Amino acid sequence: MTTTETSKTLALTGGVGGAKLCLGLAQVLPASELDILVNTADDFEHLGLPIWPDIDTLLYTLSGRANQTLGWGLEGESWNCMESLESLGGETWFRLGDRDLATHLWRAEAQRQGRGAADIVAALAQQMDIAVGIYPMSDDQVRTIVRCDEGNLPFQHYFVRRQCEPPVTGFSFEGITSARGNASVLRQLKAGDYGRIVVSPSNPYVSIDPILQVPGVWTALRDSAAPVVFVSPIVSGLAIKGPAAKMMRELDVPVTALGVAEHYRRRYPGLVDYFVIDESDATLAPEIEQLGMRAVVAPTVMKNQQQKESLARYCLALEPL
Amino acid sequence: MTTTETSKTLALTGGVGGAKLCLGLAQVLPASELDILVNTADDFEHLGLPIWPDIDTLLYTLSGRANQTLGWGLEGESWNCMESLESLGGETWFRLGDRDLATHLWRAEAQRQGRGAADIVAALAQQMDIAVGIYPMSDDQVRTIVRCDEGNLPFQHYFVRRQCEPPVTGFSFEGITSARGNASVLRQLKAGDYGRIVVSPSNPYVSIDPILQVPGVWTALRDSAAPVVFVSPIVSGLAIKGPAAKMMRELDVPVTALGVAEHYRRRYPGLVDYFVIDESDATLAPEIEQLGMRAVVAPTVMKNQQQKESLARYCLALEPL
Repeated sequence: MTTTETSKTLALTGGVGGAKLCLGLAQVLPASELDILVNTADDFEHLGLPIWPDIDTLLYTLSGRANQTLGWGLEGESWNCMESLESLGGETWFRLGDRDLATHLWRAEAQRQGRGAADIVAALAQQMDIAVGIYPMSDDQVRTIVRCDEGNLPFQHYFVRRQCEPPVTGFSFEGITSARGNASVLRQLKAGDYGRIVVSPSNPYVSIDPILQVPGVWTALRDSAAPVVFVSPIVSGLAIKGPAAKMMRELDVPVTALGVAEHYRRRYPGLVDYFVIDESDATLAPEIEQLGMRAVVAPTVMKNQQQKESLARYCLALEPL
Repeated sequence: MTTTETSKTLALTGGVGGAKLCLGLAQVLPASELDILVNTADDFEHLGLPIWPDIDTLLYTLSGRANQTLGWGLEGESWNCMESLESLGGETWFRLGDRDLATHLWRAEAQRQGRGAADIVAALAQQMDIAVGIYPMSDDQVRTIVRCDEGNLPFQHYFVRRQCEPPVTGFSFEGITSARGNASVLRQLKAGDYGRIVVSPSNPYVSIDPILQVPGVWTALRDSAAPVVFVSPIVSGLAIKGPAAKMMRELDVPVTALGVAEHYRRRYPGLVDYFVIDESDATLAPEIEQLGMRAVVAPTVMKNQQQKESLARYCLALEPL
């Protein structure tokens, strides 16, 4: 595919880990040159409110208001509503901070006005002074179901209520076969507007897979002339954050960057151009290359702003193959 | 009507002023001997949540958690959600505190489970350790519409958003003709279980009228053997709280206790047995008596707990006519 304008970058992301790399990308790129496609399959309705965890994590991170101590939610948050709800015997297993609640109330109102997810996300981003493009993977409802020994669990029940405790046997995404991918991102992908595609080190099973499995998305990424760069969420056999390593173990997948690369190769043949692994996993590079992708060794652990920007620059520097 | 058990008291109430007298009644009566029938016509849906101002004012007052400084809402309230909602450009004209929000979220959840108003109020009262009986006037939706020169306004838009500014020409209560009165209170009224009926000094037009106009309510009160005691909300030509005096002026009704008594006499003939007026209005007593009711002069201004209890005792001491 010929590209007329390839200065833009498209990033795919899920939760907290992915948002870190997105923040790095947002710091090193002009705002108009970064679009981010976000997982919405772990959205759910709680207390009658639309909770969109990955969207909000990204919004709060990019607007500089993410709670650094908790690792989720808003800085300077208070919990008076939850405390009172608890005294009324209400459901408080999913902690909604007082300030965070405003986002959900605002979104619920926007939904009642008939606004779609992309429109709502764009409005929230604007209110939070975020200039990069943030796009939910679909305006249609997709819901991750975690298959466990004990039965199927909606994602947030597995993730928050059960603290990822039940062993998993697989995942499914309700509604995905009929979900329409974000029109703007698909159009730009097909028009060759993206010169770089970066897949954040988010959970492969519950953050990245849902985005890629929205009909038309992964093939459009594969068919793009842009280099498709995946960053491994597994470093030295551990997930930096979240249940990815535990899930891999339970699924009998080797808990290594190689295991992740194999997952993506098997599920999305021909998609991955570059697979970025941490320096501590450098010895895995030859096996990863045997999967038909370029292994890139870089410092992938992002503990501070400089490391986020540095990893972002690393990903952006990779040339089309 | 003969009564077999007449130890119970039924109070009718609306907002803040009424709740004061109810608190007095609750202090001087055993909990099992007080039922309170509450206006729900100023309930509304806001931000997708069911807001029941008079119910909550009573719950918060009787549980000792009413905000004394503001005169509404909860003690020790915080406003972080509203502050964040404002920064998102959301609707914040109706201020919902962080702790107060929990009540609305809990109630919304209960409604989604199909629970009716009476059931929900009883559950909230129980969670707040309130032992007196609190009953919404109806489980059916009734909505006060304020007729103004500039058109019809839903009550809270008139009351809060417009700060009672538009001159009123009248009131209507959407849904009232088909609303069913609270079954428990109507049954007890008909069984003669109430030995005393006290109508709080709430706004006649928007607090007491809706309760009385629920089909079957005012006639059941009238037909009860119990003395029906009304307390004037107008003292020395002023409303202690709220827009009652302003409304009377705009409706060309004399802004006096007599004006209130005439309103009730005209609208509900034979209902009022005793009309309690403040000592400062003692000269109005003869004219009030000419309306066919007993005028009772008492200190009706309730600035402290002792005054609330004292007025409660005064009302309870009046004998059947």
